[in-house]
Amino acid sequence: MTPSRLPAPSSRICAPDRLMPLDPTARAIARRLYDSVATLPIVSPHGHTDPRWYAENAAFPDPATLFVVPDHYVFRMLYAQGVRMEDLGVPTRDGTPVETDPRAIWRRFAAHYHLFRGTPTRLWLDHAFAALFGLDERLSAANADAVFDRIDAALKLPAYRPRALFETFGIEVIATTEGALDDLKWHASLAASGWAGRVVTTYRPDAVVDPDFEGFAGNLARLGAITGEDTATWKGYLAAHRKRRAVFKAHGATASDHGHPTATTANLSASEAEALFTKVVAGPVSASEADLFRGQMLTEMARMSLDDGLVLQIHPGSRRNHNAGIFARFGRDMGADIPGPTDYVSALKPLLDAVGNEPSLTIILFTLDETAYSRELAPLAGHYPALRLGPPWWFFDSVEGMKRFKQQAIETAGFYNTVGFNDDTRAFPSIPARHDVARRVDCAHLAELVCDGRLDEDEAQELAVDLAYRLAKAAYRL
Amino acid sequence: MTPSRLPAPSSRICAPDRLMPLDPTARAIARRLYDSVATLPIVSPHGHTDPRWYAENAAFPDPATLFVVPDHYVFRMLYAQGVRMEDLGVPTRDGTPVETDPRAIWRRFAAHYHLFRGTPTRLWLDHAFAALFGLDERLSAANADAVFDRIDAALKLPAYRPRALFETFGIEVIATTEGALDDLKWHASLAASGWAGRVVTTYRPDAVVDPDFEGFAGNLARLGAITGEDTATWKGYLAAHRKRRAVFKAHGATASDHGHPTATTANLSASEAEALFTKVVAGPVSASEADLFRGQMLTEMARMSLDDGLVLQIHPGSRRNHNAGIFARFGRDMGADIPGPTDYVSALKPLLDAVGNEPSLTIILFTLDETAYSRELAPLAGHYPALRLGPPWWFFDSVEGMKRFKQQAIETAGFYNTVGFNDDTRAFPSIPARHDVARRVDCAHLAELVCDGRLDEDEAQELAVDLAYRLAKAAYRL
Amino acid sequence: MTPSRLPAPSSRICAPDRLMPLDPTARAIARRLYDSVATLPIVSPHGHTDPRWYAENAAFPDPATLFVVPDHYVFRMLYAQGVRMEDLGVPTRDGTPVETDPRAIWRRFAAHYHLFRGTPTRLWLDHAFAALFGLDERLSAANADAVFDRIDAALKLPAYRPRALFETFGIEVIATTEGALDDLKWHASLAASGWAGRVVTTYRPDAVVDPDFEGFAGNLARLGAITGEDTATWKGYLAAHRKRRAVFKAHGATASDHGHPTATTANLSASEAEALFTKVVAGPVSASEADLFRGQMLTEMARMSLDDGLVLQIHPGSRRNHNAGIFARFGRDMGADIPGPTDYVSALKPLLDAVGNEPSLTIILFTLDETAYSRELAPLAGHYPALRLGPPWWFFDSVEGMKRFKQQAIETAGFYNTVGFNDDTRAFPSIPARHDVARRVDCAHLAELVCDGRLDEDEAQELAVDLAYRLAKAAYRL
Repeated sequence: MTPSRLPAPSSRICAPDRLMPLDPTARAIARRLYDSVATLPIVSPHGHTDPRWYAENAAFPDPATLFVVPDHYVFRMLYAQGVRMEDLGVPTRDGTPVETDPRAIWRRFAAHYHLFRGTPTRLWLDHAFAALFGLDERLSAANADAVFDRIDAALKLPAYRPRALFETFGIEVIATTEGALDDLKWHASLAASGWAGRVVTTYRPDAVVDPDFEGFAGNLARLGAITGEDTATWKGYLAAHRKRRAVFKAHGATASDHGHPTATTANLSASEAEALFTKVVAGPVSASEADLFRGQMLTEMARMSLDDGLVLQIHPGSRRNHNAGIFARFGRDMGADIPGPTDYVSALKPLLDAVGNEPSLTIILFTLDETAYSRELAPLAGHYPALRLGPPWWFFDSVEGMKRFKQQAIETAGFYNTVGFNDDTRAFPSIPARHDVARRVDCAHLAELVCDGRLDEDEAQELAVDLAYRLAKAAYRL
Repeated sequence: MTPSRLPAPSSRICAPDRLMPLDPTARAIARRLYDSVATLPIVSPHGHTDPRWYAENAAFPDPATLFVVPDHYVFRMLYAQGVRMEDLGVPTRDGTPVETDPRAIWRRFAAHYHLFRGTPTRLWLDHAFAALFGLDERLSAANADAVFDRIDAALKLPAYRPRALFETFGIEVIATTEGALDDLKWHASLAASGWAGRVVTTYRPDAVVDPDFEGFAGNLARLGAITGEDTATWKGYLAAHRKRRAVFKAHGATASDHGHPTATTANLSASEAEALFTKVVAGPVSASEADLFRGQMLTEMARMSLDDGLVLQIHPGSRRNHNAGIFARFGRDMGADIPGPTDYVSALKPLLDAVGNEPSLTIILFTLDETAYSRELAPLAGHYPALRLGPPWWFFDSVEGMKRFKQQAIETAGFYNTVGFNDDTRAFPSIPARHDVARRVDCAHLAELVCDGRLDEDEAQELAVDLAYRLAKAAYRL
Repeated sequence: MTPSRLPAPSSRICAPDRLMPLDPTARAIARRLYDSVATLPIVSPHGHTDPRWYAENAAFPDPATLFVVPDHYVFRMLYAQGVRMEDLGVPTRDGTPVETDPRAIWRRFAAHYHLFRGTPTRLWLDHAFAALFGLDERLSAANADAVFDRIDAALKLPAYRPRALFETFGIEVIATTEGALDDLKWHASLAASGWAGRVVTTYRPDAVVDPDFEGFAGNLARLGAITGEDTATWKGYLAAHRKRRAVFKAHGATASDHGHPTATTANLSASEAEALFTKVVAGPVSASEADLFRGQMLTEMARMSLDDGLVLQIHPGSRRNHNAGIFARFGRDMGADIPGPTDYVSALKPLLDAVGNEPSLTIILFTLDETAYSRELAPLAGHYPALRLGPPWWFFDSVEGMKRFKQQAIETAGFYNTVGFNDDTRAFPSIPARHDVARRVDCAHLAELVCDGRLDEDEAQELAVDLAYRLAKAAYRL
């Protein structure tokens, strides 16, 4: 990325051979591959940036608020080493006072920058500091103030507004993620604005699908109010989903997304499903009934996808809010979501028996449990026409994690049952860095296959573009 | 492989440095190792080629029937991308009509050849096309007809008959796999034929051991009829197994093989075992009783092995026929067998307590669950005298799968508690390619150990021959 | 290690580039890193050497007694290949006679030395033979007697006494492990001796914490007798632990250690805990009650650590004494401890809810189940202030095991939530070899990060020292 309006990127960080193979033959091939994809537009089909940024196009407030306060990957690492989250400005919900001086937060962050050595967070922070702000020196306690001032000054410039960065980053399309009850007003505002940037929403109905979700009963009632359907009945509830999906589609959505604790699916008879829904509405239900209901809803969503064409994404297996004390004080998404083992083979069978052989359907599976790549996910995706394998969740920005995924999944699933890259990020300035790392790792992997005699270079060339661009567009129907 | 009767292999595919390390020092060592094993005879102690081929020695009919129709690794990849299996000529059992024109099937296959990029299937197909048929160009829609014609013409030549290929491939001995009720007529015919090729059978009694097997009751009755034993009694049932094992031994068998859903074993008292068998015969039994019975039979088989010397192979953990729709239309072995997690440590304890300390017994363990390599299988095989570790099932032809197995198993189990290579294939033309890949990967791995200072080169030399040839012969008593 | 009093190490084994990257650029960086840590003092914060050695400072008896008889990593490999443990001099508890001639044992060991090819055991044995005894030739049947004689003669020299070797090895501090009922007399004798070598104990109370431990009731009674507390009451039992911990601290302990079959923890109310203890004392309790009690005691120990500052080590997941026949004849620690899958996420939650957010507490987690590195352990350690990740248990001396740990844990946990190296050994002569291997593997890994552009070399330099020395000292408070 060498945008004319931004400073020239640091050569230390943006070295041409970053993450390339060391062997000269492999490196030359990898470089050729990378050179052909480095500047391809960014397709970001799954993520968590805030549509309000693009709609309002306001300046980002300051370096700490941009890089530290909202990013649990950043503050968890300091927290793990004894720094209080309050001292990093993370807002509390119990009224505990927190640091409000961005510079003080930034200094604490800079003083602990060594904690990120060897982590993906460090990789993209360095890249963003260098490529966006021309910073050539590694962040440290010594240069904390200077770096703060430089970034802070830049953020006030027009070139650093969200829409300008969106264009500078070369984003062709980005998907955000909104709950089923969201009014999508920022997307509506964007559509009305005349700005050319393409920002689409994604239908994420967990709050009205998961009986264990906080405020589930109220959420159901709101879903009814919004859609004019009687969401106390199974028929009305399904109709409400169909209506919301249509509204999301009208705001650009090409996919739904589902974050369940397990990969359980179900294919109950209509009367069984209705009876289960009645129990769910009456509440409370047992843990296994809640799991069954979520599983049934995945199959219902897949059936709706057969009608409306939305791609179905499944993100199972996160044990969310593991730290009770942190959850009580700070709430969700505080770096305490921990993966556990996830079964796919028996869990997905009801869904796959129902719709797995439909070539017009696309179900994208994700996992936090790497042991499932070669054992379960690649064999499933290498067989069922409806299945595709998402990139390695929670290792989206991880060099080693990407490599393990390729090494463990591709031989069985092939490249064409995968869907390219997701950045999955809330951290807007990290987007070019993440895509760049993925492209480099892919090109290095492909070059090694060429050197091994497992692939011809012209095929690797085609695959490099597929992985960086085409597969994501095709799989997500963007 | 440069057989005088076959065309000179393509240099593109059969490049001398295929799969060799990139570093010049490591590559030179690996090449020296490989040169000493490249032309060793092939020992194939476990596989699924058809003994009828060798007995009848008829020409293979055409390229599609040889390479596409019977190979679920091939057609599943097209199926996963929306190509109907009917259009690939896969026979149905429900009468659905299927494509019968081999050339039409071949064209569909060729048009989708890019789907195999990065897969082991591609690796051996390229190798077979090049080494057997002198094809220098990658298969594609453009050259589909020309390739079809060239292979089709070759298959009509005497040099491409099964026995000629067997000799060209340098096969010293190959094992096929037959069910307990098989009449072994092709093996008998082979023995009577005077042909020097060594083809042995393997005793695979799943159909008369697994209460969940289709037609189990009838199978038991047939086992009784064949052996003249009363297979409705525990004593008669065991005697019938002993008789069949003796017949299989007479047809060359040195091993039995057992493909159970789990690795459960049991060591019941004689009276408990008899009571369980009585329930099994009366049928139906619960899932856990069926599992227990299969487990008890592994221990019984091990006891018989102590008497008759057959090596006991255990292949647990496949969830077979996962796709209900495909199973209904096409039946078994359609690419829908999916692995699941497999416990070995507690599951095998009854068997190991009974016979694990017997140095005269050989039990070869396989796994589809890679997480068991370093955690369970290598520690078990590195301790129990009766245990050996089979090569990585479902990754037999996978470069990355082989590497992971070596990296995860050898440090704990050592090389000498492993058993060399299995090709495990139904695809006859793939055999030289598979053994060649295994030898190359092994030599590359050994060369890296030498470069690391973990092994002397003379030891690596000895190990290369052990892995390519000696270990399989010794472990399988061939 | 080139101690003036010992022979010059063999260049074959102690080659400067052993385990270094092959690429010249990476190798040069790795060599620079390694050169700066190669001779750092050894900090060994967890292990199983015998404090009596250092206290008595007697000569080690002979090569077989030093290297073969007590080391189950050595004799299990021969046992797995059919050599009787009796023939290797392993003492029996059922009176079965065993080989008593050290030279006969040594010859059997030497004749089977090829079995260790590719194993960590081979790596350290070669290193010890070369570095300590100047042996340049690989051990074999042919040179068995000559090697025996050379080592045997050396062991009689003052330079090979335990204290001299301790100094030669450059050990700054070593921790041994003693049970709660140990009288610590060798530690007392060491303290009184005036010798400058620092040998500290570790509090390992499994025998008085685990209701399933052999002789548990008697152990409880002895704990009462030793401490003067009424260990039949919950209050007295806890007080007894506090007293023993204080005594261990007085003998240098900075840590406790807990080897439970699972990672279960509990945080019962005081009255529930007391009621459970009462059942445990009355005995026998169910398997789940025993598991719950062990889990409760981990939380109690963590609470005591908050008071007395001992670091809490948890080593869960070993299925001990898997081989019933071997256990009956030879007892514990005979190479038949087999890992199984271990859950951490839900198992540790009660402990972490109780004390996980305490920055003054250090809990070091170990695993035998590698699948937990990236899925559970790194995310936990990368979040909870009280948690640190121990090095890869059972792969402490394993090159591939170390690499997998770094590749799977560091990106999520960071380096600074890990604790450096443990040798964890009973084999005194292996200590320098094990630390040297760890330092080499670490430097190779760091060099690759530098070449990749993921780390600056000055940071790698600092990390090399952290991993070799500082992190262990800091985490274990040594």
